[in-house]
Amino acid sequence: MRRPGLPPLRLALLLAALLLTGAGCAVQRADAPLFLPAQDAGAYHGLPGDARLMSAEIQAVAWSDFLLRHFDPWNRTQPAYPADKVFWGLTDFAGKRLYGENLRPRDPAWLDAMADASRVAEYPSLNRRAIAVANTAMRVLPTGKPAFDDPRQAGEGFPFDYLQNSLVLAGTPLYATHESADRAWVLVESRFAYGWVRSADIAWVDDDFAGAFQTGAYAAVVRDGVSLADKDGVFRFKGFIGTLLPIAPAASKGAPGSDLTVMVPARDDRGRAVVKYARVSQGDAQPAPLAPTPDNFAALANRMLGEPYGWGGLYTDRDCSATTMDLMAAFGVFLPRNSSQQAKLGWVEPLDGEDGPAKKARLLKEGVPFLTLVRKPGHIMLYIGSNDGQPVVLQTIWGLKTRSGGKEGRRIIGRTVISTLEPGENLRDLARPDGVLLYSVRSFNTLP
Amino acid sequence: MRRPGLPPLRLALLLAALLLTGAGCAVQRADAPLFLPAQDAGAYHGLPGDARLMSAEIQAVAWSDFLLRHFDPWNRTQPAYPADKVFWGLTDFAGKRLYGENLRPRDPAWLDAMADASRVAEYPSLNRRAIAVANTAMRVLPTGKPAFDDPRQAGEGFPFDYLQNSLVLAGTPLYATHESADRAWVLVESRFAYGWVRSADIAWVDDDFAGAFQTGAYAAVVRDGVSLADKDGVFRFKGFIGTLLPIAPAASKGAPGSDLTVMVPARDDRGRAVVKYARVSQGDAQPAPLAPTPDNFAALANRMLGEPYGWGGLYTDRDCSATTMDLMAAFGVFLPRNSSQQAKLGWVEPLDGEDGPAKKARLLKEGVPFLTLVRKPGHIMLYIGSNDGQPVVLQTIWGLKTRSGGKEGRRIIGRTVISTLEPGENLRDLARPDGVLLYSVRSFNTLP
Repeated sequence: MRRPGLPPLRLALLLAALLLTGAGCAVQRADAPLFLPAQDAGAYHGLPGDARLMSAEIQAVAWSDFLLRHFDPWNRTQPAYPADKVFWGLTDFAGKRLYGENLRPRDPAWLDAMADASRVAEYPSLNRRAIAVANTAMRVLPTGKPAFDDPRQAGEGFPFDYLQNSLVLAGTPLYATHESADRAWVLVESRFAYGWVRSADIAWVDDDFAGAFQTGAYAAVVRDGVSLADKDGVFRFKGFIGTLLPIAPAASKGAPGSDLTVMVPARDDRGRAVVKYARVSQGDAQPAPLAPTPDNFAALANRMLGEPYGWGGLYTDRDCSATTMDLMAAFGVFLPRNSSQQAKLGWVEPLDGEDGPAKKARLLKEGVPFLTLVRKPGHIMLYIGSNDGQPVVLQTIWGLKTRSGGKEGRRIIGRTVISTLEPGENLRDLARPDGVLLYSVRSFNTLP
Repeated sequence: MRRPGLPPLRLALLLAALLLTGAGCAVQRADAPLFLPAQDAGAYHGLPGDARLMSAEIQAVAWSDFLLRHFDPWNRTQPAYPADKVFWGLTDFAGKRLYGENLRPRDPAWLDAMADASRVAEYPSLNRRAIAVANTAMRVLPTGKPAFDDPRQAGEGFPFDYLQNSLVLAGTPLYATHESADRAWVLVESRFAYGWVRSADIAWVDDDFAGAFQTGAYAAVVRDGVSLADKDGVFRFKGFIGTLLPIAPAASKGAPGSDLTVMVPARDDRGRAVVKYARVSQGDAQPAPLAPTPDNFAALANRMLGEPYGWGGLYTDRDCSATTMDLMAAFGVFLPRNSSQQAKLGWVEPLDGEDGPAKKARLLKEGVPFLTLVRKPGHIMLYIGSNDGQPVVLQTIWGLKTRSGGKEGRRIIGRTVISTLEPGENLRDLARPDGVLLYSVRSFNTLP
């Protein structure tokens, strides 16, 4: 039997229901544009472009502190972290449902296998200096395979692999404390974080190498993806903003403005670190630290803009705290890897209990462009000035929380952008108030 | 104004609409169990466990052919493939919307940058022998970053990175024909496929190395994830079913049943290949080729069962054709990497126009357990016998097509399993008939 057509009212109800329930499925939702201010990090600070944001004295102290921390892993003779810290994943993930690379729940026995691979009872089993010879992943457990939360939930599944701790840039000094049962992974401590790295991506450092590699003069890579090949033409690794490499002693006397020759670590056939030399054009690397001027900060920030979001440094991309850490590193300012730890440094201004307008007013009044970090739980942004009376930030952000028909979703931004503290306010389905960044901002802190 | 409650009929319509539109969201669908026969590859062949499935003569010919193909990249002096083949991705992806690691559409300029990185006009720029010193990804374009199709579509998005061509197992001889602009990637040809690999994961092979590495006696790794460390204790790489390594000449005279010493390739600090030696226990590797008996096939297949699906070898996991290729390699039988190419080898039986029962009857009558491949477009399975009159196959499969409320989905299997040709027939939402594997089976072919 052919069904008669629906009367108009019922049809309208049906359509309304379709719209409501369909909102959870991204395919059925037309995307409204996301409005962002001009993507130029130099357009908002309102200061002379060559003004020093830190005095030379303060920057010198910061840089000295940075270098101490950077090379400190080579001065250790025992782990800086106890077993319950370095193996936190084994306890934290116990009893939780983890999803594998096939988007299916992992068997709980998988975590047992990880515990075996971690040899917890034998920690620490190594006491060796090392260095990263590749841009490599630092992992929570000794595996390259992922552990996702439920992929059907908004903001979960790929790329949110909870085993991905950080990217470790090539050239980073490491202290190796432990080895996995299969020897494929080494537990290391670095300036900014600890975790498991692939043993093939590090090399063992002896006194000669450690001495040679601490030349006292360092170059900061100032562009992402700079290809570094040694003088024999062998490709070594790519440099990124955040990469620091020693300037070769002979070359450091070169004329200002000329190309730089830097030391790059390589691995010999027995896994030992050897020094190689690579020439880098002046536009790709500069003597560190860079002068802390708005022009310099903006130039580097602009090179990060639009780059894809990388959870924990996946695919050598950056997440929120990697962006701030890498940018500050070029200026000689140490930041830890974790956003909540970053938010504790410098002069901290709590904003609990303040409403949105008050938060904005205080940030505009007290924030220093390029030196003030703005924190909400699990996220960090860099204050870079104001636009039409609104604070403007640089941030690497996955997305904005949306809600429609009672179902939570994400409006993916997925890259490094310049925005106000209320991006997406024009979006009909932005979760309000919890999807508005400003609503969750808890504090700001000014470096150093 | 408060709206009055809906009258019952309209409520029913609304509920029906909710059900219809909600069916596309996996979270709202209860999972019925997927029934699979006993996961034991030895349970279905009905033959003596030690029966030879290939005569010694035929296997010897196959093995000789395999070795010729395996080492052939070292005999090449010019590329075996023209530019339009090796750069197919640049033309094939042009005009298509690709999604990046942030699940957002890639800017079309991204493909232009890939074309620049590929230096098409300068192809070929290298003429060098090489070898994989790590288990490494072979890519369609010179980048480790992914290109997904629309992540909102069923069976698209992670892990279906269309730049992932294959895993290249450590120890694989390669012919290098070209280098990327950033020198981070080298275009190589191997026994089974061609594409871009990370330059840091290969080493250059000279006459000495090539001579030493072709000992004439080879070991097949017979377990996945065998850790191979050299005699200095340096971890080299993991071996997998499919890994073949030369047996060290001195050690090859060792007593039968004892541990094996194999050659493992390593990279020196100038990128050159050097021979190292690793001891492997007899249970982890055996002299190749293995005797082609049901017991041996089943033993290796059983070690693959349950392992996660890996599109193009992502995460060193296998997809459908990698499973068949790697399993056959241990028995000395060459298979190319692509499922449709695999389906052309041996004695091919087309099944076009046959109905399901006829396909099954012919497979049961003419198929040889462990030597017959079963093909549907884009997929390959290995026939391993029968169960209650039903053909049984071993396959690595992502999932089954489902349809509910007009919306297509996937019931994820995501691993290597033993199944009939109609897995999921008990599922209410299995797409019928197109979600039934048997429906799309087009041919089977018997090796060698």
